Amino acid sequence: VGILDADITGPSIPKMFGIHTRPEGSEAGMLPVSSGTGIKVMSLNLLLPDENEAVIWRGPIIGKVITQFWEEVIWGQLDYLIVDLPPGTADAPLTVLQTLPVSGIIIVSSPQDLATMIVKKAVHMAKTLKKPIIGVIENMSYLYVPEIKKKIELFGPSKGEEMAQATGAPLLAQLPIDPELAQLCDNGEIENYTSEVIDKLGQYLSKMSLSSPKDSKDS
Amino acid sequence: VGILDADITGPSIPKMFGIHTRPEGSEAGMLPVSSGTGIKVMSLNLLLPDENEAVIWRGPIIGKVITQFWEEVIWGQLDYLIVDLPPGTADAPLTVLQTLPVSGIIIVSSPQDLATMIVKKAVHMAKTLKKPIIGVIENMSYLYVPEIKKKIELFGPSKGEEMAQATGAPLLAQLPIDPELAQLCDNGEIENYTSEVIDKLGQYLSKMSLSSPKDSKDS
Repeated sequence: VGILDADITGPSIPKMFGIHTRPEGSEAGMLPVSSGTGIKVMSLNLLLPDENEAVIWRGPIIGKVITQFWEEVIWGQLDYLIVDLPPGTADAPLTVLQTLPVSGIIIVSSPQDLATMIVKKAVHMAKTLKKPIIGVIENMSYLYVPEIKKKIELFGPSKGEEMAQATGAPLLAQLPIDPELAQLCDNGEIENYTSEVIDKLGQYLSKMSLSSPKDSKDS
Repeated sequence: VGILDADITGPSIPKMFGIHTRPEGSEAGMLPVSSGTGIKVMSLNLLLPDENEAVIWRGPIIGKVITQFWEEVIWGQLDYLIVDLPPGTADAPLTVLQTLPVSGIIIVSSPQDLATMIVKKAVHMAKTLKKPIIGVIENMSYLYVPEIKKKIELFGPSKGEEMAQATGAPLLAQLPIDPELAQLCDNGEIENYTSEVIDKLGQYLSKMSLSSPKDSKDS
């Protein structure tokens, strides 16, 4: 599996995976950096001298970097390449959907009406560009408070089914807010996270048959 | 007070304020729409036939819309014009900082290291473009659970002071996650929200002396 971090002005993948190695380059291209469990990652933050440094770039350059991450990185043989996008419908998602041979889109939403509205815009974009939506994941769906053995719906009742209907794609998972996950992300140990919901999601996704991006690229 | 919604691809201001009126135009320009308490709002979502519709625009057009919202909207006499920006350091913030006579920037962060990193990039951007940072607000700082009379730090311990140091600006407020606020936002009733933290923040901000944007524009 590979992850192409297409959130150029807010790249968070390397930090979550605890990757701080600079990518090596060769004449053929740049090599992605492998995580602890062997996930190949390419992100602009790996190329910056300091992770807090800002790239103050306008859209055309952002689009160009994403295209380079696709064309000039030696991804090798992958089962899947996951492209992580920022929210909204500006340059990054537009470039990815128009330039990369995307097999499908996973929509990540949250229960707030506000978030649902922004996500519906993304759905509209996907439909306009005729890219299939594979499924919907509802993030920050609830918080489980062990002391009172109760789920609290912090951002209101789930909009998961509504989003599934709006996209015509299945609701793949409802992820809770989990302080342990937040902690692991901050420590660069996201790969140590286990939960029943994530296990089920993994099983579901591994059963899906998608055309591999590399195949699509070759064809 | 006016609010210019510069989050063109994810505009959430009208929904939070329950504004659905289309802005009226005249030869002199377009009129902002007033909220229940008289805040003047201009947002791309007010101009779309359906709030869920997506604008699939690249950076240059996004920048142009923001410039038009500043130059061609008849804001009238305002104490303050607040410009709401999306996260990151792409076209929208760049256009605002380079084109509008910004008196100061309020940085909104959250306690996660990940968020702090992205916000530090924004701080870096502000410093590069020599724009003053007025203060820092930490959002989603904690959740208060009444049943157990306890604050839960969902995203880890506060990074507020760290952010204040990084920016050299005061920590203006630590806002909790509040399901009531989420509900009010979804209902378009954000103006009905009251809390001690917000009251204090309002008092602090009203005491600040900033040059009015309209003055700056005239000068």
